Amino acid sequence: MSGLTHLDAQGAARMVDVGGKPETARSATATGRISMSAEALSAVREGSGSKGDVLAAARIAGIMAAKKTGELIPLCHPLSLDAVRVEFAFEEDAVRATATASLTGKTGVEMEAMTATSIALLTIYDMAKALDKGMVIEEVRLLEKTGGKSGTWRAGE
Amino acid sequence: MSGLTHLDAQGAARMVDVGGKPETARSATATGRISMSAEALSAVREGSGSKGDVLAAARIAGIMAAKKTGELIPLCHPLSLDAVRVEFAFEEDAVRATATASLTGKTGVEMEAMTATSIALLTIYDMAKALDKGMVIEEVRLLEKTGGKSGTWRAGE
Amino acid sequence: MSGLTHLDAQGAARMVDVGGKPETARSATATGRISMSAEALSAVREGSGSKGDVLAAARIAGIMAAKKTGELIPLCHPLSLDAVRVEFAFEEDAVRATATASLTGKTGVEMEAMTATSIALLTIYDMAKALDKGMVIEEVRLLEKTGGKSGTWRAGE
Amino acid sequence: MSGLTHLDAQGAARMVDVGGKPETARSATATGRISMSAEALSAVREGSGSKGDVLAAARIAGIMAAKKTGELIPLCHPLSLDAVRVEFAFEEDAVRATATASLTGKTGVEMEAMTATSIALLTIYDMAKALDKGMVIEEVRLLEKTGGKSGTWRAGE
Amino acid sequence: MSGLTHLDAQGAARMVDVGGKPETARSATATGRISMSAEALSAVREGSGSKGDVLAAARIAGIMAAKKTGELIPLCHPLSLDAVRVEFAFEEDAVRATATASLTGKTGVEMEAMTATSIALLTIYDMAKALDKGMVIEEVRLLEKTGGKSGTWRAGE
Amino acid sequence: MSGLTHLDAQGAARMVDVGGKPETARSATATGRISMSAEALSAVREGSGSKGDVLAAARIAGIMAAKKTGELIPLCHPLSLDAVRVEFAFEEDAVRATATASLTGKTGVEMEAMTATSIALLTIYDMAKALDKGMVIEEVRLLEKTGGKSGTWRAGE
Repeated sequence: MSGLTHLDAQGAARMVDVGGKPETARSATATGRISMSAEALSAVREGSGSKGDVLAAARIAGIMAAKKTGELIPLCHPLSLDAVRVEFAFEEDAVRATATASLTGKTGVEMEAMTATSIALLTIYDMAKALDKGMVIEEVRLLEKTGGKSGTWRAGE
Repeated sequence: MSGLTHLDAQGAARMVDVGGKPETARSATATGRISMSAEALSAVREGSGSKGDVLAAARIAGIMAAKKTGELIPLCHPLSLDAVRVEFAFEEDAVRATATASLTGKTGVEMEAMTATSIALLTIYDMAKALDKGMVIEEVRLLEKTGGKSGTWRAGE
Repeated sequence: MSGLTHLDAQGAARMVDVGGKPETARSATATGRISMSAEALSAVREGSGSKGDVLAAARIAGIMAAKKTGELIPLCHPLSLDAVRVEFAFEEDAVRATATASLTGKTGVEMEAMTATSIALLTIYDMAKALDKGMVIEEVRLLEKTGGKSGTWRAGE
Repeated sequence: MSGLTHLDAQGAARMVDVGGKPETARSATATGRISMSAEALSAVREGSGSKGDVLAAARIAGIMAAKKTGELIPLCHPLSLDAVRVEFAFEEDAVRATATASLTGKTGVEMEAMTATSIALLTIYDMAKALDKGMVIEEVRLLEKTGGKSGTWRAGE
Repeated sequence: MSGLTHLDAQGAARMVDVGGKPETARSATATGRISMSAEALSAVREGSGSKGDVLAAARIAGIMAAKKTGELIPLCHPLSLDAVRVEFAFEEDAVRATATASLTGKTGVEMEAMTATSIALLTIYDMAKALDKGMVIEEVRLLEKTGGKSGTWRAGE
Repeated sequence: MSGLTHLDAQGAARMVDVGGKPETARSATATGRISMSAEALSAVREGSGSKGDVLAAARIAGIMAAKKTGELIPLCHPLSLDAVRVEFAFEEDAVRATATASLTGKTGVEMEAMTATSIALLTIYDMAKALDKGMVIEEVRLLEKTGGKSGTWRAGE
């Protein structure tokens, strides 16, 4: 047996049964970055904030993707999210995206935070790819989750 | 001006007009990996192939996501893909996903390949996260594109 | 500060956090109309009820759109609607649509009622546009909402 | 009057109001089969399990379709499913699919189980249609439902 | 090897490459039926046509599902349909649905016709299930396809 | 007979067959406005451009809705859009949205322009509704269409 909760005894994929679990407050934060050339980074910076819609578009895409997680990831439960937010920070050679999702429910929102982060970064890739096709999405990981039976988890602890 | 084709002169996001472009054969291949603990990697390996549906589920999720790219990435055109495939390889501490999309059309399929790769990796994260929440999605990048006015591009050339 | 609840202190869009709100019974009713030429209006009338599917199609489209509201409006929460209904009335030079949505939940269903109304009217536009491209969708507004902390609101009071 | 709960007194379609109903544990199991030529059946068998992704793809498609039921069936409520699973069995001249869905909610999951079964069978049709276009989907029915005011129902009792 | 075109040499699912195929006029017609009790059949009949929206809702659901086929069936290509229609006929103990889809394209529309038929029948099940949970969807099959390299195919020939 | 192209001789809804039509360059522009209180209008203005994401979110929502038109409006064809853009202007007591869509294809994009306009305005309603529930969406109409057999049409000519 593999120990994977999404497989039954025969190895068949299934949506894990959360029917007996209590509804508790849960949150998850994920982060990731897209590294790019100086030229592309400068264009993203100049095309955002007061100058243009680049990061606003990526933020909206990330938020909307969080709501679509159950449609994209085959074994995820459809969830009634309480909140989603996506933030960006400029690093020396990259843009970092950080997404937080929360709900009161039977299962965690790690996948919603991870999916929002990934789609936000892919949207930046899309908008800057005419300048730099070599951009790399990297370090996409869970930073923290709270709530549920396993309680709080933080990366690196 | 930022030089970003997805912004107009005022910085407003727009879907780039491809109306005047000819339909040509195009393809794109993207790749990325998800690094994980030995325990999680072993579980993914044991839950795939003849033993279970893990990589099959991730492959299907990636293929279906390629078809949803225009719905996820705000400024992508909806495309009539000719083909999509997603492949996996086990690395020492990671699973690698590589996706190829192709079409005969007016615009490239880089985003379809990048999105298929990302969602395939997120699906693996979902299935193995009970064993290792610290998995990291990394090195998601375009490997190659062919066709269109700019012709062939390969990473690292 | 703008006073808009969907923006954070930096002006970034976010889905408002409803995590601390109680679940209460809520409803919302919206209405709107599409004005059209006598010829088009007559055709819609003749193509509905016992004669054809025009208003039935518009009703179904409105109901299905209510369920898609969280997918269409970027910062709307995905909601588990209890009920949706869409009704039509013929006016002298227009068809009026009125939609009511309800749920037991943490946030209101005003957007679901407004979206159902809009898509129902757009569906009528689609079906009659071969006869009259100059039809106008107008007076789309909230008539009433009930429930939640702010209680009942009625248009024109 | 037709006695159909989805129609109002004028015959207009509506989503039935479940606002006053209590949330209870509910489940539903549906089943159906696709009959096919010996050649196609042999190919499905050889392309599944350790040899290929046929039934894994059909299973994933069925599970994902269960989550989309409220988007496909006009008057179905969008539901927060607790679990979905899809199983297959080889019969002499057919593949049988059986799907079970469950939730804690105000309305039943019969349509989710029926939809998962139907889409799983359609996916098998898709994958084998190059070998046999004459395959027939048949005997798609509800086997059992539990929970709700009407309690347990079993086919054939 | 299984002979299934949707599997590669290792058995991995893939979307078949139609890139080299010419665009030709294609059509497909599928049919199926839902058998039910006399009471349910009578209610469907009384709730349709001039009396109500039952079959109109099922028809709209079928047409909309045809457009969603590429999103539901994992390895189907997204297609630009030229036309879809869904028709119903009352049989002694059943309602029959027949759907026809057509396009000018590189691949056939069999799955679109089969999916429209299935979802139309499921919609009838949904609307009548309060009267008869034992309804059975059966005889869902392709009647005819035209166009493409393999030309015309008719059931039973 | 009603003269409505979306109904057959029995009044049944259908997707009009465009199979025999040539692919030509087509465009459509629609416009509409949302009138609101001075307070809400001021908040939208202050929450846009360099200060916040309000209009950027509405623009992205409109563009994404244009791509979803075939999924929202039951009898619309799924279309491969060449371009979509959405613009806003402040009027004395309202925000005006104007959307333009174009494609090279067999059928027009009027519905895509109308849908993008409607969803952009609904998104503004959503973001400002905490300040003014009495906002009204009005004057949503087609301004111009070009291409196709009927050629150019302009409102008011």
